[in-house]
Amino acid sequence: MLRKQSGSITPLVGILGGMGPAATVDLYSKLIEATPAAGDQGHLRVMIWADPTVPDRSAAIAGDGEDPTPKLAAGAQQLADAGAAFYIVACNGAHAFLPRVREQVDLDYLSIIDVTAAHVAALPYVKSAGLLATDATLTAGLYQDALLAAGVTPTVPAREDQHIVMETIYAVKAKELRPELTQALAGVTDRLSERGADVIIAACTEIPLALTADQSARPLIDPAVLLANEVINEAAARAR
Amino acid sequence: MLRKQSGSITPLVGILGGMGPAATVDLYSKLIEATPAAGDQGHLRVMIWADPTVPDRSAAIAGDGEDPTPKLAAGAQQLADAGAAFYIVACNGAHAFLPRVREQVDLDYLSIIDVTAAHVAALPYVKSAGLLATDATLTAGLYQDALLAAGVTPTVPAREDQHIVMETIYAVKAKELRPELTQALAGVTDRLSERGADVIIAACTEIPLALTADQSARPLIDPAVLLANEVINEAAARAR
Repeated sequence: MLRKQSGSITPLVGILGGMGPAATVDLYSKLIEATPAAGDQGHLRVMIWADPTVPDRSAAIAGDGEDPTPKLAAGAQQLADAGAAFYIVACNGAHAFLPRVREQVDLDYLSIIDVTAAHVAALPYVKSAGLLATDATLTAGLYQDALLAAGVTPTVPAREDQHIVMETIYAVKAKELRPELTQALAGVTDRLSERGADVIIAACTEIPLALTADQSARPLIDPAVLLANEVINEAAARAR
Repeated sequence: MLRKQSGSITPLVGILGGMGPAATVDLYSKLIEATPAAGDQGHLRVMIWADPTVPDRSAAIAGDGEDPTPKLAAGAQQLADAGAAFYIVACNGAHAFLPRVREQVDLDYLSIIDVTAAHVAALPYVKSAGLLATDATLTAGLYQDALLAAGVTPTVPAREDQHIVMETIYAVKAKELRPELTQALAGVTDRLSERGADVIIAACTEIPLALTADQSARPLIDPAVLLANEVINEAAARAR
């Protein structure tokens, strides 16, 4: 019986990742950064299931790609089998499939979208939030629904600007980000700001790898940082 | 039966990490960087078991700390249970315990130390390699034995310099690295060079987070990069 971690008191945190791998590294880095620890032993126990072969979430949401649900469920099951107390997913678009995963796998997840919407709604100066996200995340209405429910108006890029967003995301995934793309993406935030966005939500895990806070026309909200902090809180609440 | 990844052809790679978490991020990043992939789906499937509660390897090797073997074996068993084809360990010092883990858990590992010694021995200009490693890794003789067996003379820091190395490593783990420490560590490489080292091996996974190649008096060998490349080769060899 090697599975039991007899000495540990904090729960095992699951990360479903690989979508893409760099975004998984980014989320795990932010979790480590958010952890108040003076040495190795103060950090959370984490299991990462990184399966980059999960079918493209954007294509599936657009209706012309393989359903990613089975592989997402397989990963969630691996996390559950290993004893994870809950899990998070390092891909916004994948959240469109998580309710169906939850029907198949008995393991709770913290939604990066719900955590972000709650945070933004609590900022007193925010009436509208601009969204930098994949076509898929926008089509699925993930952030729009959550923001509207929280009383915040979502602002999405115009069609040509959305092309820039997508080009940037796929360039990050292909490790081919160019300064011109970052500059173009900064321009997208200018136009979202002109149309009333009080903050910009980096609503795809690749966006913070392409745009820094000082390149954004409005405060740039990084959902991965918010999720990392929520994981710390949740793990503390569940610690024995 | 959610476990089977029916569509995949590359093996699952296991990473035993959390020792420390930042070094795990670094190793996984280097694996992603080493992978020739134009999008998510070209990357390797990876499972990371990051257990920072594994007892301190240095203390155990010095003979005054809890044995980390049971927790390392528990992690290796998790990787085996999930279907990993082989695993790597993001901590040099932990390699002292891996032969005993292998007796308990039926899963092969790629040794970061063997990979590095083979690489260094193949460099035609290298007669001696300087070692930046923990007290524990040096006490266990991990790199010295592997280098000597490969025909390379190991050069270890003098006592005061070794204190600088240890101080730097623990500062990285505590997220308290200061420029003075990096400068002092660069001085250590100067003295290893003066004593004949033709290359410097960053033989602790925290060292590359504290010292860049251009700050080292001799070419800085990063075992994590070498291991990442070896993982790509091994995964390709095992792909079905």
